[in-house]
Amino acid sequence: METKSREIYLDNSATTRVYPEVAALMNRIFLEEYGNPSSMHHKGVEAERQLRQARQILAGILKGKEKNLIFTSCGTEADNLALIGAARANARSGKHLITTRIEHPAVLETMKYLESEGFEVTYLPVDAEGVVSPDDVADAVREDTILVSVMHTNNEIGTVEPVAEIGAAIKARNPRTLFHVDAVQGFGKAAIYPKRMHIDLLTASGHKIHGPKGVGVLYVADQVRLRTILYGGGQQGGMRSGTENVPGIAGMALAAQLSYQTLEEDQRRLRAMKTAFVERVSRIDGIRFNGRTDEKSAAHIISLSAEGVRAEVLLHALEDRGIYVSSGSACASNRPHISETLLAIGTPKEYLESTIRISTSVMNTPEDLESAAAALEELLPMLRRYTRH
Amino acid sequence: METKSREIYLDNSATTRVYPEVAALMNRIFLEEYGNPSSMHHKGVEAERQLRQARQILAGILKGKEKNLIFTSCGTEADNLALIGAARANARSGKHLITTRIEHPAVLETMKYLESEGFEVTYLPVDAEGVVSPDDVADAVREDTILVSVMHTNNEIGTVEPVAEIGAAIKARNPRTLFHVDAVQGFGKAAIYPKRMHIDLLTASGHKIHGPKGVGVLYVADQVRLRTILYGGGQQGGMRSGTENVPGIAGMALAAQLSYQTLEEDQRRLRAMKTAFVERVSRIDGIRFNGRTDEKSAAHIISLSAEGVRAEVLLHALEDRGIYVSSGSACASNRPHISETLLAIGTPKEYLESTIRISTSVMNTPEDLESAAAALEELLPMLRRYTRH
Repeated sequence: METKSREIYLDNSATTRVYPEVAALMNRIFLEEYGNPSSMHHKGVEAERQLRQARQILAGILKGKEKNLIFTSCGTEADNLALIGAARANARSGKHLITTRIEHPAVLETMKYLESEGFEVTYLPVDAEGVVSPDDVADAVREDTILVSVMHTNNEIGTVEPVAEIGAAIKARNPRTLFHVDAVQGFGKAAIYPKRMHIDLLTASGHKIHGPKGVGVLYVADQVRLRTILYGGGQQGGMRSGTENVPGIAGMALAAQLSYQTLEEDQRRLRAMKTAFVERVSRIDGIRFNGRTDEKSAAHIISLSAEGVRAEVLLHALEDRGIYVSSGSACASNRPHISETLLAIGTPKEYLESTIRISTSVMNTPEDLESAAAALEELLPMLRRYTRH
Repeated sequence: METKSREIYLDNSATTRVYPEVAALMNRIFLEEYGNPSSMHHKGVEAERQLRQARQILAGILKGKEKNLIFTSCGTEADNLALIGAARANARSGKHLITTRIEHPAVLETMKYLESEGFEVTYLPVDAEGVVSPDDVADAVREDTILVSVMHTNNEIGTVEPVAEIGAAIKARNPRTLFHVDAVQGFGKAAIYPKRMHIDLLTASGHKIHGPKGVGVLYVADQVRLRTILYGGGQQGGMRSGTENVPGIAGMALAAQLSYQTLEEDQRRLRAMKTAFVERVSRIDGIRFNGRTDEKSAAHIISLSAEGVRAEVLLHALEDRGIYVSSGSACASNRPHISETLLAIGTPKEYLESTIRISTSVMNTPEDLESAAAALEELLPMLRRYTRH
């Protein structure tokens, strides 16, 4: 039995393996530097020092200040804090919000909740490649628009949005409108400078960049008014109550540091792997790639539809060979549903339930994607024969 | 220099050192079982199995069902979810809430927020030992009372509230009134059976029981209506969106299991340590213990005031000898403030700023408290001489 002898993990946009250096740091904090940053004695000071160092690392990467960072328990909480917190704090200036049809549920569902609080939300369309037009955004911005939320990199199809252009377009139309970017899939994969890109609020997550689960961060630009959504001990300047998850925060920061240290060469490598994969797999009959596959797309995400083969069937056939991919987006709970993103880019009906996502990371080798391509070449004709009878 | 040669950590109610077994389990999950429970392949199944096992352990300890548990990012989030989630979901039945004056800020501040949402909150007093009277609770319950929140063990003075009696009193008055118990300081230290104690909602936290920071759990009894406070991918049946913190959840569950395995003998040991400490330290002039010190108090929390010596001064003098304690409650952020709990039990003014908390755990030895007692015997006369000149 050769199957499962080796695991090829190609679901890095769902979550990642923790960097060994990060696990080691967290282990040390669990066992030695376990203090509560609110404690005034030496153990508290040690913990506070870890927080401080994490802030310095992340502020450096984002070219912001330490005080611009609020640590949360995940990307979802950071998105909720950004949207609910900014909407409530700025409701006097207006009740209008803008987002797109292809956002992560952490944004879309929060927007729906805000509608129930009396806010009005405009959902912008995207083009066939999933790109949000800066002009469309500008046209939608009104006098009473308090916030626009557009993701950095789409989690399902890897479209990288023109966030800098969108930011500039928003501010040209209404300088008071805040710009939130959910960068859960872009942080650690691309250079992101909020100030230069006119981003007021930016969400990132630990576990998508080989950091731990259970930690995220929200960048909040100077002067942005925000209300907390969790009430308690007043940690983090009152913006996020609850004892700080010191090991998680330190682990996320170290993961970010490791990711950005070799970002350019890693991206070149992942890009070459993606290009070779797309070229090879394109030759298989009835394959459709969703979103762009060129230099403008995320190097680490590939969305492909295989006509006539249900995603679950293909996923499990790949799994039998130790290759782990995702059907649609596994960021959402595992109840099957039709992808809003695939609908928004106009994916033909026959492909909607035949789409898998392959997502790589720095831990993957070219051989991993070659194995996946070879498996698809072998499996697809077989599965099609099987399902057609 | 003998000082700091050994650390005596007596601030376990602020946070604890992680059990080595828990750190090892988390390390394995970080590096091997790192999947996303929402993923449909083997790595997802592995992660889902960890969640399932954590649910089984915690449900077993609480004598509840797996589906009664919602994992959160901390005790504070669990308190917020319990109070805001239950208040919003049950607002049609009434707008009245009841709590006590000595709750943790995660409850008190959330109640204040709910007042801004239009709820009416009754804050009950406590007696000189910090005990909430079940009769007072019953008297306050009205037809439109939808929830009562009373903590299990006070974090500052160690008072153990008669939650079973309070639960019975509430239900006798109004069976529809929900009962929430913040058991962050009681879970892992006492047997808590929500069903038997008429508890509908119960909060616990990982990092107070030698589990990791960044994870908590809310027990929700069958049939209790609750609305989520975080919107997104719909994980945990829609009640708590965001990728589950698998290592944190598994770590918290293992910590709970280890804590409950030897609970009775550990409690006896901690009780004997506390009793010996109280007896010895009582002989020092101008010492006052806050709350009870007998069998009815928490074995792991000792609150003492030393007349004429500021808490910060004493804390740092103890720190110089490697003994770490807390001034007041370090669960809140480190901005100094007068303790609401100490005010509520009628602590004389001259003691308010002279109060320290000593909190033990299974990792402490009798020698730790003996060292603390000896240090107090030596330091207090000296510090008083110093501060009086």
